[in-house]
Amino acid sequence: MPSTPVWFMRQAGRSLPEYRAARAGTPMLDACAQPDLITEFTLQPLRRYAVDAAILFSDIVVPLKAIGVGIDIAPGIGPVVENPIRSEPDLARLRNLEPGDVPFVTEAVTALVAELGDKPLIGFAGGPFTLASYLVDGGPSKSFDRTKSLMYGNPKLWNALLTRLTDITIAFLGLQVAAGARAVQLFDSWAGTISPEDYRRSVLPHSRRIFEALAPTGVPRIHFGVGTSELLGLLGEAGADVVGVDWRIPLDEAARRVEPGKALQGNLDPAILLAPWEVVEARAREVIERGRTAEGHIFNLGHGVLPDTDPGVLARLTDLVHEESVRLAR
Amino acid sequence: MPSTPVWFMRQAGRSLPEYRAARAGTPMLDACAQPDLITEFTLQPLRRYAVDAAILFSDIVVPLKAIGVGIDIAPGIGPVVENPIRSEPDLARLRNLEPGDVPFVTEAVTALVAELGDKPLIGFAGGPFTLASYLVDGGPSKSFDRTKSLMYGNPKLWNALLTRLTDITIAFLGLQVAAGARAVQLFDSWAGTISPEDYRRSVLPHSRRIFEALAPTGVPRIHFGVGTSELLGLLGEAGADVVGVDWRIPLDEAARRVEPGKALQGNLDPAILLAPWEVVEARAREVIERGRTAEGHIFNLGHGVLPDTDPGVLARLTDLVHEESVRLAR
Repeated sequence: MPSTPVWFMRQAGRSLPEYRAARAGTPMLDACAQPDLITEFTLQPLRRYAVDAAILFSDIVVPLKAIGVGIDIAPGIGPVVENPIRSEPDLARLRNLEPGDVPFVTEAVTALVAELGDKPLIGFAGGPFTLASYLVDGGPSKSFDRTKSLMYGNPKLWNALLTRLTDITIAFLGLQVAAGARAVQLFDSWAGTISPEDYRRSVLPHSRRIFEALAPTGVPRIHFGVGTSELLGLLGEAGADVVGVDWRIPLDEAARRVEPGKALQGNLDPAILLAPWEVVEARAREVIERGRTAEGHIFNLGHGVLPDTDPGVLARLTDLVHEESVRLAR
Repeated sequence: MPSTPVWFMRQAGRSLPEYRAARAGTPMLDACAQPDLITEFTLQPLRRYAVDAAILFSDIVVPLKAIGVGIDIAPGIGPVVENPIRSEPDLARLRNLEPGDVPFVTEAVTALVAELGDKPLIGFAGGPFTLASYLVDGGPSKSFDRTKSLMYGNPKLWNALLTRLTDITIAFLGLQVAAGARAVQLFDSWAGTISPEDYRRSVLPHSRRIFEALAPTGVPRIHFGVGTSELLGLLGEAGADVVGVDWRIPLDEAARRVEPGKALQGNLDPAILLAPWEVVEARAREVIERGRTAEGHIFNLGHGVLPDTDPGVLARLTDLVHEESVRLAR
């Protein structure tokens, strides 16, 4: 039996000194639009960790910026939208994405795939609720007041908005797969902030359309959000092959909540990596052990690598996952 | 059968124009230290809504400030701690709370109880994880990096810290009950950010000590946090009589997760109140209906009233809960 595959959300980025050095002075969205930087940042973690996949260095708002939405990533804050989308006429600003809008992504993916050889590149896109939340609330939000009041109060506009975002996402993921990405992850990071019923009614049909559009390509589709304990079954039902799980629920319990045939990804709390190695080791073993109850397990963190994480710990953890999973499988 | 009781977390505060007017120019923690303002702010919502309880106007950091911790509430940000607590010697700054440290609370509770007559006053305190999170991270946090790395990495210091916070909380709730509070709510708002196993190991023993200390008083004890779907059973096990539930899980499912004999409180998404009344009404009916499966239900929101909420909607909702619950019980 092969070892459990492992990669880390945000394995590229702020936790790596070589990333901070090469990014210095370049705004995030500028970096995401330069093929050489995308390629470099995507590859940096692979020079340090024996991870089983690369994930495209990008940001979920890249396709929105590319079609002309006034959006920027404010350091220490997150995406900030110049004119939030809150009415029917605002939708006109969301035209569909053409491959020509993001030539830098196609170019970077093509270069990466050539460079990576056997190692798969995972494509990257934001999920419909999460993209909508930035566009409607205008930036990061604690309680998603405006997003939710639109979702609850004006389902027609909500659905029109998510339909446009879904079209954009299908195009964005489609061009990554066309250029050689061998898996995709849909980051609907904040979907866990709504109830299962609302998710089923107001988000799932859109996510399903994304996953269905990708079905003919045959690439594995990963679906992730934080705080989604109650949504795990629905994240799978939307059409994902792999359901991402945060640390709030053990993997064996998560396995009981998804339909048969779905693999799980996760779920070490990123904050555990800030503790001494003995703690990391013990907790990682627990995750591997519990992951064996799932129909396939990709080891990952329950959310992105925290900026203060020591890359040495991630290197050691990667090896531990490989060795320990082989040992357990014997 | 009597109607379902109802009150709203943060029913006092920012959503009321009379509150904003009376608070203008007074910093939050100054307001929390003036008996006349505490009394006025606690009573304001009762002049508008037929709610079944008042909740003491206070803040979870009030007892910390009262024992001399350098802490303030920065407008638009939240509690900010001057010198975060991160080492053994830092603990010396957390002496126990004496009633003489918060005479304004005793005075306000006494006045309120006299004023309220039959209507109960709910006492108020922060839970151990949440208090620790502000003290260790030094302020509001997205991922609670430092708090969790202390919890995971240094259980001895963690337990010493939570023991002190627990002593303070027992004293703070105790004096409220002694002055006449007829129920208490422990707000461990951010406890939902850790896994059930970590909660059981690192937080529950402390919360249990708080609830046990209150047991002889006979007052009902409510235990609340957001994002706690996986912790509901443990929040009850800690010794609460009532478990608060956010909107991420329907009440009938929540009822299956707590031990028999526990009532539930919740769980309308506060953001629903920003939608048109028809939506509020339909969703509130659903909550009432599902709450009937619990062994006792107190209607509330799943978290605090949002600042943009129209008080007229809360007034109407209060009446709806009373009428609808009586109608359903017939």
